[in-house]
Amino acid sequence: MAPRDRAAPRRYHGRPLFLLEQVVIAHTLHVDLGERSYPIFIGRELLRDRDLLRRHVGGSQVVLVSNETVAPLYAERVLQALEGCSLVTEVVLPDGEQHKTLASMEHIFDRVLADGHNRTTTFIALGGGVVGDMTGFAAACYQRGVDFIQLPTTLLSQVDSSVGGKTGVNHALGKNMIGAFYQPQAVLIDIDTLQTLPARELAAGLAEVVKYGLICDAGFYQWLLGNMPRLLAREEAALAEAIERSCAAKAAVVAADEREGGLRAILNLGHTFGHAIETHQGYGNWLHGEAVAAGMVLAAKLSAMRGWISDASVAELVDLQLSMGLPVAAPAEMTLEEFRTLMGRDKKVLDGRLRLVLLREIGAATVVDDVTEGELAALLGST
Amino acid sequence: MAPRDRAAPRRYHGRPLFLLEQVVIAHTLHVDLGERSYPIFIGRELLRDRDLLRRHVGGSQVVLVSNETVAPLYAERVLQALEGCSLVTEVVLPDGEQHKTLASMEHIFDRVLADGHNRTTTFIALGGGVVGDMTGFAAACYQRGVDFIQLPTTLLSQVDSSVGGKTGVNHALGKNMIGAFYQPQAVLIDIDTLQTLPARELAAGLAEVVKYGLICDAGFYQWLLGNMPRLLAREEAALAEAIERSCAAKAAVVAADEREGGLRAILNLGHTFGHAIETHQGYGNWLHGEAVAAGMVLAAKLSAMRGWISDASVAELVDLQLSMGLPVAAPAEMTLEEFRTLMGRDKKVLDGRLRLVLLREIGAATVVDDVTEGELAALLGST
Repeated sequence: MAPRDRAAPRRYHGRPLFLLEQVVIAHTLHVDLGERSYPIFIGRELLRDRDLLRRHVGGSQVVLVSNETVAPLYAERVLQALEGCSLVTEVVLPDGEQHKTLASMEHIFDRVLADGHNRTTTFIALGGGVVGDMTGFAAACYQRGVDFIQLPTTLLSQVDSSVGGKTGVNHALGKNMIGAFYQPQAVLIDIDTLQTLPARELAAGLAEVVKYGLICDAGFYQWLLGNMPRLLAREEAALAEAIERSCAAKAAVVAADEREGGLRAILNLGHTFGHAIETHQGYGNWLHGEAVAAGMVLAAKLSAMRGWISDASVAELVDLQLSMGLPVAAPAEMTLEEFRTLMGRDKKVLDGRLRLVLLREIGAATVVDDVTEGELAALLGST
Repeated sequence: MAPRDRAAPRRYHGRPLFLLEQVVIAHTLHVDLGERSYPIFIGRELLRDRDLLRRHVGGSQVVLVSNETVAPLYAERVLQALEGCSLVTEVVLPDGEQHKTLASMEHIFDRVLADGHNRTTTFIALGGGVVGDMTGFAAACYQRGVDFIQLPTTLLSQVDSSVGGKTGVNHALGKNMIGAFYQPQAVLIDIDTLQTLPARELAAGLAEVVKYGLICDAGFYQWLLGNMPRLLAREEAALAEAIERSCAAKAAVVAADEREGGLRAILNLGHTFGHAIETHQGYGNWLHGEAVAAGMVLAAKLSAMRGWISDASVAELVDLQLSMGLPVAAPAEMTLEEFRTLMGRDKKVLDGRLRLVLLREIGAATVVDDVTEGELAALLGST
């Protein structure tokens, strides 16, 4: 069950792309999905890189989708890089998860059809996960599928949404209930955008980075233990390294299981507990990454209860997350009964069995469906 | 350019499925798309065939989507065949192309989520092309893709929508502008449903049947010339034969070109002229198949002007369509200028060049992009 062999970085050939200033902080890696493969570029100043961008725009028509927070900061440089395209439509959506809806999709289609984009057009997402998920889904559906480029501007979207092909929107009765698996032509991660990211969002994104180390790359986890201060200080070389290793880890898992048959479930370490916490607190009060961070500690504790990892490893993770300003426990007022109810609603529940991702060891996750009532009580009684 | 080799029926193994009454009128054929392959069953009483239906339902949850015209006639027998499923949701939409919208999709999702369907559910489309296109698209998007079964109840949907994987909805600014390529688990064509089909819709469906003969199966076209009276009289054995050969023809073309790269364009014989006529007359006044019928005669005449087919072949086609009660010319009031304008808007126009499907010979279509103004004037001045 340990995914380490398949997730090993040998499937990914990170190589220096170009030199900037004095250190190599630009990389490219390749997500290997057969005919749906695509490259991820990581570096500085990529949003201004006309050649890089234009190389991945198939035709001369472009739809740039962003939101009201990101567009004022970064849209202009992208539009400049797109100069020379015959038709450029800019769609600026309101910011926030509550706008990730079919209604916003319809707004995109209204604009794109009014401007007369044909099936040679390319949709470009400039923003975080919400913009990326919606733009990707719109690209998947427009004339039954047009090209799509991701320009993720938050750490979470850079290490999570840019790999995996999950696109979609929310429904009043559930998150991400409507969507498609759809791969981009390319992902351009401009780490300069992280300089404007609020500190709380940076830490929440780093929670997902820590997750990749825990589930499939012990060496990366060790690196994170040593380099977290550089990441929190937004040192560019460290950020590029962390993003590349996170994307490589996720890409390896996704390449082995594109349509979420099994292995891919390990990416949900901390997420089942995390979703319960998010729901309990009301969406938006805890950031997704914060809830996942608390969930990862719970999963680690449960793994230690089974003797799979040491109590020292749990303590090390708790210390790391505290240094990042992340939660290390569920909200004090949440009861075992509330956890049980909310986790039962999780999308990953099949046939009534609760599936949880645990750690066989640091760097090797596994999915279990045999967690007992006693274990849950011991774990959640003590949080 | 002639597609006859690739479209030859050898790729399809029609074989008797079971005997009913005294003649073999049930067949199965296989649409060969690698891991997205699926079977098409053609016969009588298939909507009541619990074993056949249940064999293709993966889990025990089912969503049956139909419309207000078809549901009263056929939903009950399907629901009976589904008895024993743990969760069955019936969604009945209003009838008509004007309801093929994202709003109708949202209505489906509302119902399906309210009833708590998980990703093991199967969407079943019971109805014509509108129901099939929308249900298929909803299945493609629900939780990023669930299983889907088609039960087409009109001749047009049986020979057209049931093969090819095109799903989607309309937008105010264009038909089928939002959708996905998504293949069903299986298609069950119950020819009993054709007994309740209005005569005008039967003839419009037969126009598409004639199209398959013209574009890639000269032997089938000859068979149609001899057997049209039996088809118009709704003789079951003849209907089953015509549907199977039509599906096999379309399946061969689609298998060679699933994502519409090139060859698949020959399926649009008569459609560029036809769409112009439909738009000019206002959607719904001419049935799609009627407009395509007129368009096929125009394409045949243009092919004859180039010396590719004989005037006698054109006359034969005209006589055939007259015997079916189908139009054989554009509306008298449509001008050359109107055709030129409306055909310029067609989705198949790329880079400003008008692409038309013509007949190299009866049974072999080809796509041309070199039609001259003079040819169009000679053709459309004389309609």
